[in-house]
Amino acid sequence: MFQQEQSKTELKQLGEFGLINHLTSTIRLQNTSSIKGVGDDAAVIRQHEKDLLVSTDMLLEGIHFDLTYVPLKHLGYKAAVVNFSDIYAMNGKPEQLTVALACSNRFPLEAIEQIYEGLLLACNEYGVDLVGGDTASSKAGLLLSLTIIGAVEPGKAVYRSGAKTGDLIVVSGDLGGAYMGLQLLEREKAVFMETPGAQPDLQGFDYILQRQLRPEARRDVVEFLAENAIQPNAMIDISDGLSSEILHLCTQSNTGCRVFEDKLPIDPTTVNLAREFEIDPTVCALNGGEDYELLFTLPQEHFEKIRNCPLLSIIGYITDTPNEHLLVDKSGNTHHLTAQGWNAFEKK
Amino acid sequence: MFQQEQSKTELKQLGEFGLINHLTSTIRLQNTSSIKGVGDDAAVIRQHEKDLLVSTDMLLEGIHFDLTYVPLKHLGYKAAVVNFSDIYAMNGKPEQLTVALACSNRFPLEAIEQIYEGLLLACNEYGVDLVGGDTASSKAGLLLSLTIIGAVEPGKAVYRSGAKTGDLIVVSGDLGGAYMGLQLLEREKAVFMETPGAQPDLQGFDYILQRQLRPEARRDVVEFLAENAIQPNAMIDISDGLSSEILHLCTQSNTGCRVFEDKLPIDPTTVNLAREFEIDPTVCALNGGEDYELLFTLPQEHFEKIRNCPLLSIIGYITDTPNEHLLVDKSGNTHHLTAQGWNAFEKK
Repeated sequence: MFQQEQSKTELKQLGEFGLINHLTSTIRLQNTSSIKGVGDDAAVIRQHEKDLLVSTDMLLEGIHFDLTYVPLKHLGYKAAVVNFSDIYAMNGKPEQLTVALACSNRFPLEAIEQIYEGLLLACNEYGVDLVGGDTASSKAGLLLSLTIIGAVEPGKAVYRSGAKTGDLIVVSGDLGGAYMGLQLLEREKAVFMETPGAQPDLQGFDYILQRQLRPEARRDVVEFLAENAIQPNAMIDISDGLSSEILHLCTQSNTGCRVFEDKLPIDPTTVNLAREFEIDPTVCALNGGEDYELLFTLPQEHFEKIRNCPLLSIIGYITDTPNEHLLVDKSGNTHHLTAQGWNAFEKK
Repeated sequence: MFQQEQSKTELKQLGEFGLINHLTSTIRLQNTSSIKGVGDDAAVIRQHEKDLLVSTDMLLEGIHFDLTYVPLKHLGYKAAVVNFSDIYAMNGKPEQLTVALACSNRFPLEAIEQIYEGLLLACNEYGVDLVGGDTASSKAGLLLSLTIIGAVEPGKAVYRSGAKTGDLIVVSGDLGGAYMGLQLLEREKAVFMETPGAQPDLQGFDYILQRQLRPEARRDVVEFLAENAIQPNAMIDISDGLSSEILHLCTQSNTGCRVFEDKLPIDPTTVNLAREFEIDPTVCALNGGEDYELLFTLPQEHFEKIRNCPLLSIIGYITDTPNEHLLVDKSGNTHHLTAQGWNAFEKK
């Protein structure tokens, strides 16, 4: 897991245009909205009956990922999926992706191929077309900047700002797993650094590792909502931790909230590993990032439709007091939720 | 020019969301197609009667720009304009921009503000809305990744692949200036490095420096074509030098070309400075990059409409021999055009 054997073709043998051709020549466009993909000054998209959604994310080596334990194919897959998640968080469907990639000469062609393999695998699984991008040489490590374009029926886009007093607060999947996966990988990396050659002890943690290394975006949730004619009032995806996202949602909606600790969905594997690390599982769920679950609010009239949906948990409700964002703990005491999510400019 | 005095506010004081708010709070959306800009999981664009054009470009410090002599505001301006140029090269109109920016802690808030000032100035001048983006911390210098979204009437997008035998080859503006501007800045940087405190000798070179530091995209050319009901058969913008771009265009169109040296538009300032540097001005025009002029081909029936247009020069014609891309020099001898444009992975 910590070392990748591979043959090496230097990028400069191909040149920029050779590299782009090599990486994109097998792409077949899947969406009727993708009129023209890679190979011109711009891609062409035709979406005459829907609105478009656009979102951009950047991932930098040493900041957002550590190649010591992130396989390149997983990196590509995750980079794409994280972007798709932003489109689902608007209640849309991702359709086109552009990828700007820069790397230093220490990366051979085979490394870039692995990243593209991951990117294209994610595109295939989610029905997205890779339609353009840019490649460049970097003096320091690897970086990816992705822009995803999605489509939504006019009037169906769900913003962060639409939450209403009395709305149910709902979250998909479970929380804190990706954070515990990162803790586990960091621990094994530390062991490896101290004792090179040591084999990482990752047995039995498949689920947790997958949450960190190969997250999925919640297309199924958006499809469930559409099938059940549920239009959320507000929605956001959880990339920086539940607390941080719920505060974004409430601030932009000018509301408060009450969230119940005993309703937070946490997988037993996450709970057990958190205890082993002496971390409170609730803290993982509230402040651990990168779960890419969806957080949304909807009128109480939908309660019956979602109470038994295995994808979803109702974790609280929206209140009319904009400055009160409360967590009710298992003893019934209330605490103010605070954002402890990742700060891009804070030294760790 | 070589030193920038400024007050310094550390980025970590603001945090990522504070920074985004600070930079984007004054943005007012100008295009009716921009439904929702910065501040949610994705921007929303409504363009129900037009096709969309999407293009991405990445700029890295030390690779694409040198902060020794590129003022940050100019950097922002140029980064935006270079992206707009890709949309004009498709015969479209740029409307929405997303900006991903990463920088290390050595950049204070004021530096980022200057970049945004340049970005927003370009957006204002070209009627484009900045609708989204991402900010991150980088371990090595400054980098920008921009995605531009444009609009074009269905069926009016102009590809690189449409050139036809007998087409006139037309180029806008003049060539080689941006390259000579770079040579001049590099020479003065070398002087400055040897003798710190030396004042750069840039008198009388305003035009050349502007070509390098503050290029414009050819909106006027696209508007001229529309007003005169001219639909080019093929078009590309000149970012890597005329030779490189004409080869792209001919290769994708499966055609040859004849270009005439004495028809190449070169500004007298470029000619004089090239001679001072002992560089052949024709070589500057053919291989110097970053001019961001438009190169296009059109049926000969349009000859009368464009022969007297001060924006345009007819430099040759398209032939039916795919492997013959010829330059006819001033003595009537022919030479094969070769791409000597910038190779992102070649060591310089």
